[in-house]
Amino acid sequence: MEIEIGRSKRARRVYAFDDIAVVPSRRTRDPEDVSVSWSIDAYQFAIPFLAAPMDSVVSPATAIRMGELGGLGVLDLEGVWTRYEDPEPLLAEIQGLSEERATERMREIYASPIIPELVTARLAEIRAGGVTVAAALSPQRTQELYETVVAAGVDLFVIRGTTVSAEHVSKNHEPLNLKKFIYELDVPVIVGGAATYTAALHLMRTGAAGVLVGFGGGAASTTRTTLGIHAPMATAVADVAGARRDYMDESGGRYVHVIADGGLSTSGDIVKAIAVGADAVMLGTALARAAEAPGGGYHWGSEAHHSELPRGKRVHVGSVAPLEQILNGPSPVADGTANLVGALKRSMATTGYSDLKEFQRIEVVVAPYRTH
Amino acid sequence: MEIEIGRSKRARRVYAFDDIAVVPSRRTRDPEDVSVSWSIDAYQFAIPFLAAPMDSVVSPATAIRMGELGGLGVLDLEGVWTRYEDPEPLLAEIQGLSEERATERMREIYASPIIPELVTARLAEIRAGGVTVAAALSPQRTQELYETVVAAGVDLFVIRGTTVSAEHVSKNHEPLNLKKFIYELDVPVIVGGAATYTAALHLMRTGAAGVLVGFGGGAASTTRTTLGIHAPMATAVADVAGARRDYMDESGGRYVHVIADGGLSTSGDIVKAIAVGADAVMLGTALARAAEAPGGGYHWGSEAHHSELPRGKRVHVGSVAPLEQILNGPSPVADGTANLVGALKRSMATTGYSDLKEFQRIEVVVAPYRTH
Amino acid sequence: MEIEIGRSKRARRVYAFDDIAVVPSRRTRDPEDVSVSWSIDAYQFAIPFLAAPMDSVVSPATAIRMGELGGLGVLDLEGVWTRYEDPEPLLAEIQGLSEERATERMREIYASPIIPELVTARLAEIRAGGVTVAAALSPQRTQELYETVVAAGVDLFVIRGTTVSAEHVSKNHEPLNLKKFIYELDVPVIVGGAATYTAALHLMRTGAAGVLVGFGGGAASTTRTTLGIHAPMATAVADVAGARRDYMDESGGRYVHVIADGGLSTSGDIVKAIAVGADAVMLGTALARAAEAPGGGYHWGSEAHHSELPRGKRVHVGSVAPLEQILNGPSPVADGTANLVGALKRSMATTGYSDLKEFQRIEVVVAPYRTH
Amino acid sequence: MEIEIGRSKRARRVYAFDDIAVVPSRRTRDPEDVSVSWSIDAYQFAIPFLAAPMDSVVSPATAIRMGELGGLGVLDLEGVWTRYEDPEPLLAEIQGLSEERATERMREIYASPIIPELVTARLAEIRAGGVTVAAALSPQRTQELYETVVAAGVDLFVIRGTTVSAEHVSKNHEPLNLKKFIYELDVPVIVGGAATYTAALHLMRTGAAGVLVGFGGGAASTTRTTLGIHAPMATAVADVAGARRDYMDESGGRYVHVIADGGLSTSGDIVKAIAVGADAVMLGTALARAAEAPGGGYHWGSEAHHSELPRGKRVHVGSVAPLEQILNGPSPVADGTANLVGALKRSMATTGYSDLKEFQRIEVVVAPYRTH
Repeated sequence: MEIEIGRSKRARRVYAFDDIAVVPSRRTRDPEDVSVSWSIDAYQFAIPFLAAPMDSVVSPATAIRMGELGGLGVLDLEGVWTRYEDPEPLLAEIQGLSEERATERMREIYASPIIPELVTARLAEIRAGGVTVAAALSPQRTQELYETVVAAGVDLFVIRGTTVSAEHVSKNHEPLNLKKFIYELDVPVIVGGAATYTAALHLMRTGAAGVLVGFGGGAASTTRTTLGIHAPMATAVADVAGARRDYMDESGGRYVHVIADGGLSTSGDIVKAIAVGADAVMLGTALARAAEAPGGGYHWGSEAHHSELPRGKRVHVGSVAPLEQILNGPSPVADGTANLVGALKRSMATTGYSDLKEFQRIEVVVAPYRTH
Repeated sequence: MEIEIGRSKRARRVYAFDDIAVVPSRRTRDPEDVSVSWSIDAYQFAIPFLAAPMDSVVSPATAIRMGELGGLGVLDLEGVWTRYEDPEPLLAEIQGLSEERATERMREIYASPIIPELVTARLAEIRAGGVTVAAALSPQRTQELYETVVAAGVDLFVIRGTTVSAEHVSKNHEPLNLKKFIYELDVPVIVGGAATYTAALHLMRTGAAGVLVGFGGGAASTTRTTLGIHAPMATAVADVAGARRDYMDESGGRYVHVIADGGLSTSGDIVKAIAVGADAVMLGTALARAAEAPGGGYHWGSEAHHSELPRGKRVHVGSVAPLEQILNGPSPVADGTANLVGALKRSMATTGYSDLKEFQRIEVVVAPYRTH
Repeated sequence: MEIEIGRSKRARRVYAFDDIAVVPSRRTRDPEDVSVSWSIDAYQFAIPFLAAPMDSVVSPATAIRMGELGGLGVLDLEGVWTRYEDPEPLLAEIQGLSEERATERMREIYASPIIPELVTARLAEIRAGGVTVAAALSPQRTQELYETVVAAGVDLFVIRGTTVSAEHVSKNHEPLNLKKFIYELDVPVIVGGAATYTAALHLMRTGAAGVLVGFGGGAASTTRTTLGIHAPMATAVADVAGARRDYMDESGGRYVHVIADGGLSTSGDIVKAIAVGADAVMLGTALARAAEAPGGGYHWGSEAHHSELPRGKRVHVGSVAPLEQILNGPSPVADGTANLVGALKRSMATTGYSDLKEFQRIEVVVAPYRTH
Repeated sequence: MEIEIGRSKRARRVYAFDDIAVVPSRRTRDPEDVSVSWSIDAYQFAIPFLAAPMDSVVSPATAIRMGELGGLGVLDLEGVWTRYEDPEPLLAEIQGLSEERATERMREIYASPIIPELVTARLAEIRAGGVTVAAALSPQRTQELYETVVAAGVDLFVIRGTTVSAEHVSKNHEPLNLKKFIYELDVPVIVGGAATYTAALHLMRTGAAGVLVGFGGGAASTTRTTLGIHAPMATAVADVAGARRDYMDESGGRYVHVIADGGLSTSGDIVKAIAVGADAVMLGTALARAAEAPGGGYHWGSEAHHSELPRGKRVHVGSVAPLEQILNGPSPVADGTANLVGALKRSMATTGYSDLKEFQRIEVVVAPYRTH
């Protein structure tokens, strides 16, 4: 249904997770009977959660812990862990910065060069933890660093930017040819963000194993005010899930995973992401609240220290509980910030579903007015 | 009218009581000429109000008082009254708990076992009060305790859970077969919550005398944030009223009562519930504000002390007036929290209706922006 | 366009003044060239404003002042001026009451009987001021007091209640037969509130000269929370204006005036009321802000001291400027609370209109999100 | 899609910038490859920004600075610079006024007569700065002062009022005949505000080079509350862009520039204005935040000191950074108030566009609920 903004412009109505909810069916189940397992390529996970490649969320240690708890931690290879031998004091410093100083000091900290040897060392540390190894680069840095990454050994390669297209145009440099790159790489690639059907379809055609859905992923984003761009997540995920279906058809059956990345602050948001078509979710804020999160109660993304145009802030999210309790409960609170897995299972059970793939078919309603 | 959330997902727009209002017709009446009487099975009530089976609302004493005032008090048989010989000190303790301690301490209090002898004693106490006796169990506990309940003597049997389906699936235990259970029971059964047409229709087919409409009933619920589930009440009641009509048709005339349960904080909400099709309403918050309410100005449901995933909080609702005044006025306040019966009668009179069944046909408007 | 609330209920979307705005046309005018004069029956007014019959707005003195300034003050014959020889100390006392005491004390004050001699005296006082005399009774009191009122001499007779229908049904007493009453009365009658097309059409058929549009008129009303009833004013006025057109057709040309009554707090609201079809507006809050208003910066209606079910509050509205400045400026403020006439004229001029009747045809838009 | 407000009134749904957002396409670009250049008549600009003719934004000095930085500063010829030899102390005084005194004192300051010699001197000063010279008059003053302006030398002549129509009707004076005036003038004219398709089309037919889109332009406006008039900018710009297209057709190819004027507080708003059809934007608040802005952290328009009906306020907007940094960054903040050019370029690059004309075709969505 197209809307007329004015005589020369039409638009489409789009929806955020806050605008929607899931509704019960005529059947109910026991939460114990529900499976939330997820697999991509050859890798199996007990829970469909990826920890976002952000310094406030994933360190080598928390990547290992995340893997032990059934999920996947993705290390940011352009963060402090590959720029500094000992980043812990810098993480502590960031947490202690005043509001006024934060952006400027973070710019300095992240201006330090990436050291290839540290890339190798950090990945080795995670592998030694006995878990699936995943790491992320931006499209801009991929060509420069991917050989180091592959040589160091990585199970899943993540290319993540504010927005990543299969068709980047540049006058000054040869952009990364995603299709060629993914074809030649021996490792499955997850790539994004993409927020529209067409952008995602083109990313799927590059051979990616998964697509990250979102724009400016990270709770601290002020993208709409700064850039005027906004891709509400319920519509974005449902659109990209439509691309998955159409691409499966055109490719003769290749299933590309749809991973919601952004706007997932509570267990309710996670439930909704899957309800509109996500196979898995990449969590930032939700895991930055873990007691062992390297952000120490703060959360920030790379857009918070952009040199020219910062589009986010370092935000205080607090420490709610240890990661295990954030994931599996029991929850000390009633606000959807802990026992994320238990809440997902209970929501699926209460509405009568027993696995994630089925749950993508649940009935959804538009009910934008929040209950106070 | 279906809405497209995104390419692979459609949704329906649903409505809360806050989104709607009733409008006058061309006729007016005197409030004195209006009847709000209600009857279910063989039981007659001067007012269509059930007090919700929650420890902050119904004790044996307030169940009797509610009956004396023309309504029906429903005792929760899984609350403090069947776990403790003398629950008064525990109720007082809950009221005095700090915010931080509340969830944890309530978990302990409600972990104490249910004592069948207390079930018998409490029901006997209510019956001795000379009023209709009603008591509630969760579906999980019904099989274990119903014989005790029936033996103790109960007029109306309530099975109440967050969501209750006629088709619960479990791998580990034989779930309660509602249809068989209700058929064999000699006592009329009210069952719910159900929030959708289909779920309610199936509950009606079990032989229930009434269906509770709602999901997560209780003002303290944070279900949407935690589980992503939300069933706004105006749509839920109107859908279940549609099931009542269709079931009456398919059953050759059996009328199953639709009882709105949840989201009914003010007299205005009660008016709207009946306007969209409810025969009666189950009140929690609204009665927790009575001076003699056992919650002493606080209100909580069982979801507030769930062992793994609390989905609500103990909330302070204050004490507005004695129960008689909450129901029949005069109201000391102008905010819809007292003289609930007077407000319902005045609303019906002002809009030209003289009984509840007629009032279900009143014209309703969508006007979501509150007057400030 | 009907909306489905749920399977058994449909509803219509309705609009408040806050939801709409007027837009410029291709023409502009000088404010000096605009006329806002209004006439009803034999009475001419320079401005289309009636001061609402409320003790916080109209005393005999302010009724005279309102007349001198070109409008019409309507005295409430059931307020303090007809109950007390010297009401000034009581008005002062009401202004000084604490929030807690206000409802109770006002109930006492308004429980004092109405003294017919005072009705006569107050109307004589206004007439002596040389202005058009208008006074209001509720439908309940009309039969008892109208002869006193007519004998005292009144130019315009106002019958005003929360909602007034042409078809009041009562088992206990013979209700006022509006049609007969108005037919026999020698004085033109303005009657309301009515908030729907049908209710207003029936009132028009009684022979009324004007219909008050609104439900629960008065800024202090909490009708929606208490009674669940809400008749947003933009839709109500446009519906009743539709009844005016249809009644003019069926009656062979009788023009019944549509007077918006309620929800008119700012000059912007007044503009919108006329834009959707009002011939004149009855102002409460807007005039209670005058320095000489008898409420002394406070505003209350009879619903604030209802004996059983108060549905409003005494609210503090402040004193903005003398009545003359509230009406004609210059305005000391930029929030639409002063220079109401100037704002109306400027709005009409800016959008290209030169009289009120033309301005009822201006283009209106729905733009519910307020500018902050 | 017309909406029924009530039986006798229909309305159209309109949209503000806050209601909409732009979405990525399948292509991305480098911000360095994007051009935001703009030209009108014979004048070229590196950036499509006009500084609004308001005393808090443009002085002769900041007009020159704006030109040096690639934009266009428009001097208000009815502000302090043409009323006072040395206006700096008055600007300082305005900044220091208390809230209560502000309106009254500003009325006095702006009551001082305009001195034609100062008009000449100020324009000479700007021309001496080596930049394009632009100055604004209200329609009321144009006839009186235009010869002075033209004689002093101006490159672009701006006629700006709250709303300017091609068809002003007056009983008392001969209004400015825009068509004749523009035809005879040798200088290109930019005229507005106009907020609707028809009003803009008529302005285009007068021969104007550009049309200012808006109503009551200026962030401090309280037009909706005061006048009931509101023309949300997304719809207004898209409507006027439709008029540009239709006028180009009827005129055989004359392209009239559409300049959004009002509601442009952040870089995100600028992005959206162009996305719905603007060729350039006139900035008030956004530039009042520059360190060298003459308002010194305060912002006000002429409506704030209207003698009869003030419709805005002097507002504190703060000083964010020097003008160069407000325009070109680097931004010290993440809220869309600095690096406006960088943000516009990045938004265009991220969504795959390389010039402004192309970007007017970008896909837009309706997503009214702001991200918190």
